[in-house]
Amino acid sequence: MFKKILIANRGEIAVRIIRAARELGIETVAVYSEADKDSLHALLADEAICIGPAKATDSYLNMNAVLSAAILTKAQAIHPGFGFLSENSKFATMCEEMNIKFIGPSGTVMDKMGDKINARAEMIKANVPVIPGSDGEVFTAEDALEIAEQIGYPVMLKASAGGGGKGIRKVTQKADLVAAFESASQEALAAFGNGAMYIEKVVYPARHIEVQILGDSHGNIIHLGERDCSLQRNNQKVLEESPSVAIGQTLRDEMGQAAVRAAQAVQYENAGTIEFLVDESTGQFYFMEMNTRIQVEHPVTEFVTGVDLVKEQIKVASGLELSYRQEDISITGHAIECRINAENPAFNFAPSPGKIESVFLPAGGVGVRVDSAVYPDYTIPPYYDSMIAKVIVHGENRFDALMKMQRALYEFEVSGVITNVDFQLDLISDSHVIAGDYDTSFLMETFLPAYQEDKE
Amino acid sequence: MFKKILIANRGEIAVRIIRAARELGIETVAVYSEADKDSLHALLADEAICIGPAKATDSYLNMNAVLSAAILTKAQAIHPGFGFLSENSKFATMCEEMNIKFIGPSGTVMDKMGDKINARAEMIKANVPVIPGSDGEVFTAEDALEIAEQIGYPVMLKASAGGGGKGIRKVTQKADLVAAFESASQEALAAFGNGAMYIEKVVYPARHIEVQILGDSHGNIIHLGERDCSLQRNNQKVLEESPSVAIGQTLRDEMGQAAVRAAQAVQYENAGTIEFLVDESTGQFYFMEMNTRIQVEHPVTEFVTGVDLVKEQIKVASGLELSYRQEDISITGHAIECRINAENPAFNFAPSPGKIESVFLPAGGVGVRVDSAVYPDYTIPPYYDSMIAKVIVHGENRFDALMKMQRALYEFEVSGVITNVDFQLDLISDSHVIAGDYDTSFLMETFLPAYQEDKE
Repeated sequence: MFKKILIANRGEIAVRIIRAARELGIETVAVYSEADKDSLHALLADEAICIGPAKATDSYLNMNAVLSAAILTKAQAIHPGFGFLSENSKFATMCEEMNIKFIGPSGTVMDKMGDKINARAEMIKANVPVIPGSDGEVFTAEDALEIAEQIGYPVMLKASAGGGGKGIRKVTQKADLVAAFESASQEALAAFGNGAMYIEKVVYPARHIEVQILGDSHGNIIHLGERDCSLQRNNQKVLEESPSVAIGQTLRDEMGQAAVRAAQAVQYENAGTIEFLVDESTGQFYFMEMNTRIQVEHPVTEFVTGVDLVKEQIKVASGLELSYRQEDISITGHAIECRINAENPAFNFAPSPGKIESVFLPAGGVGVRVDSAVYPDYTIPPYYDSMIAKVIVHGENRFDALMKMQRALYEFEVSGVITNVDFQLDLISDSHVIAGDYDTSFLMETFLPAYQEDKE
Repeated sequence: MFKKILIANRGEIAVRIIRAARELGIETVAVYSEADKDSLHALLADEAICIGPAKATDSYLNMNAVLSAAILTKAQAIHPGFGFLSENSKFATMCEEMNIKFIGPSGTVMDKMGDKINARAEMIKANVPVIPGSDGEVFTAEDALEIAEQIGYPVMLKASAGGGGKGIRKVTQKADLVAAFESASQEALAAFGNGAMYIEKVVYPARHIEVQILGDSHGNIIHLGERDCSLQRNNQKVLEESPSVAIGQTLRDEMGQAAVRAAQAVQYENAGTIEFLVDESTGQFYFMEMNTRIQVEHPVTEFVTGVDLVKEQIKVASGLELSYRQEDISITGHAIECRINAENPAFNFAPSPGKIESVFLPAGGVGVRVDSAVYPDYTIPPYYDSMIAKVIVHGENRFDALMKMQRALYEFEVSGVITNVDFQLDLISDSHVIAGDYDTSFLMETFLPAYQEDKE
């Protein structure tokens, strides 16, 4: 097992990783930006190294600075958390070259799953259902028309070499397709030097249901059930739960097995998540993408399975076999997570950084966990994500979990900055959410308009 | 189910009960003394009523004041927590007479288990092993000599009508018995108008192992495994864990079944604890006493069984059947609780009340729970118990739980008052404690002398 690891992240996930490492008897090195010198992760770690100015590109995204800190402190491994360098294959490969273990999959595997067309081809090979669309690249509007006719509108045209939103068009009817294809392809050619496109059916609204997987370096891969993350605002998850009320045991098993096949296809190591869209009307599920890192919402899975995912990440990275076989995993009760952000729901959720005057985190009692990195008098810097805490509850059943979440959010108190605590309280008190009757359109198209009208 | 309950307590247990009630959809009424107007339980409850001056006898022990508050607020039930009125049979009976449900056993059952000679006779009838001693009262020194000879020295002589430490003598050898008997009996006669004594073998050192039970009003009684509470300072529990490393599965089952028989013997309702002493050299266990209330250390059982004991208390008091049958209860992993007190280990653990300037409770991450009622700028009043928090951890196994507790205590920060956090950290880092090799003598006779020498 490692003697010392460096945590290349900040905020609650850095604290979460420091705690897991300490419980495994491993020393920890925090890295922090100049804006983060009083942050909890820097205070809690055994060592803390400043790696640059506030701007993430100058510090948390500065691969050389992070690697230098690891070399300087003789850290044997780096845990990237989520965001920042966590899905940067170049960084993972650099770590490998420096003989520092990257706690996650290899750069090669990351690349395989990061390239959308490649990932899609891998999934088809592995018999994992993908969203209906083109098999590979499409070069002409005529071919595009034919494929769109087969899969049905609306469709999404995406640049094969795409990224950053360039070369993407949503087409809702046949009449618009040719023009959209030409303009997107030209945009792609200009941006990436490659005008090839691919086409996918738009599966919306749907349930966003993802399956947690874990793999080790001995070829063992297991899944740990699903999380329903359909409640999203601008593609940002707001509330997550496990299990999903939208799927029965048969579909759950099928998705779990498909997720394992997906991971096996690329000989996946460490923690990862296979994101699926589920069409509730047909019960069909589709591979969307793989996240090759630990996720924000991992604690709901930890509550229902009893598995410490971050400890497993560290253990398998050190070469140990997974502590669990598939038959050891069972789902107990129901877990829900609400993300608490310093943001103002009344002003389009604008970030609300600043000094926290007082804070009361509602941990305590049975089945309530609060992962956070804030404390009284802490100043939330404006440079990073606005998430300040995750409230996660575990109940005997979904109703019990909802009641616990209500209780916890009722107690949650922050002064000095504006948060979405009351927004979350309204959300979990909504009759659709209570009934589990929501999809990826619900928050934006149903809940928010009514909420905003109500607050006016 | 009740619509509203009153919590006749303060501190973390009052907060714990408010949380459980709120999660069940029940409104809560807090009562508080003048010294407790800014206390968390008064702030968190839906209603809060001042019931008198700081001194407990004028407020939390003032039965009429508590009952008046319940009547005024139309509370349908009273949860007494632990301490204060929780084992006062007169109060339980008064509640009954006012048609307010006392969340605990009836006054009659409390009296049955509170009278030591009676409880002993009940246990013998129920085939529960009791500490070797006299069957009922002993009136002469000659009879006492004969019994002591049978059971072996050392023995304890106790006044039959005793209480408050009067009429009690420990006798280590035969030569001292007659004189001790005469003086204790005379003391008892003077104090209680009754010179009758009873005799028990002294089982020391031993393991203090208690079994949690739950009963409903339909005659169902189950046990929820044991807690090892052998680490005590002046008969005050300091650290508790479940399961106990001192007993194997056979003894565990026997003790669990004996605890159920003990509770059945008095048709016990609600949560209770059967305290046993276990002689590790022989594997023999002896009934010591029954606590007819929820206990401080109940969270360790909640962690290993997944049962919310306080919710079950409320449910069965409302007339519902227990949510669990015996076969539903299984023990998962290992839990440890450390009691955090505002006290000074360097000055014989003198209480250290006062204003908390800042506090960081180490909740967060997997399997760490902190039940507390303190917050920054809160002033701990000098009138009550010095316990300010309970840190409870749940690990996959005992080693994992110990590592978690180390991590949690390492993070625990309080400024403004002195606490026993570092003392607890030393205790769980002791090689005997890590090995599970301790009994009721260990903390006082082995650990503390070395600890104090080390600190000088």
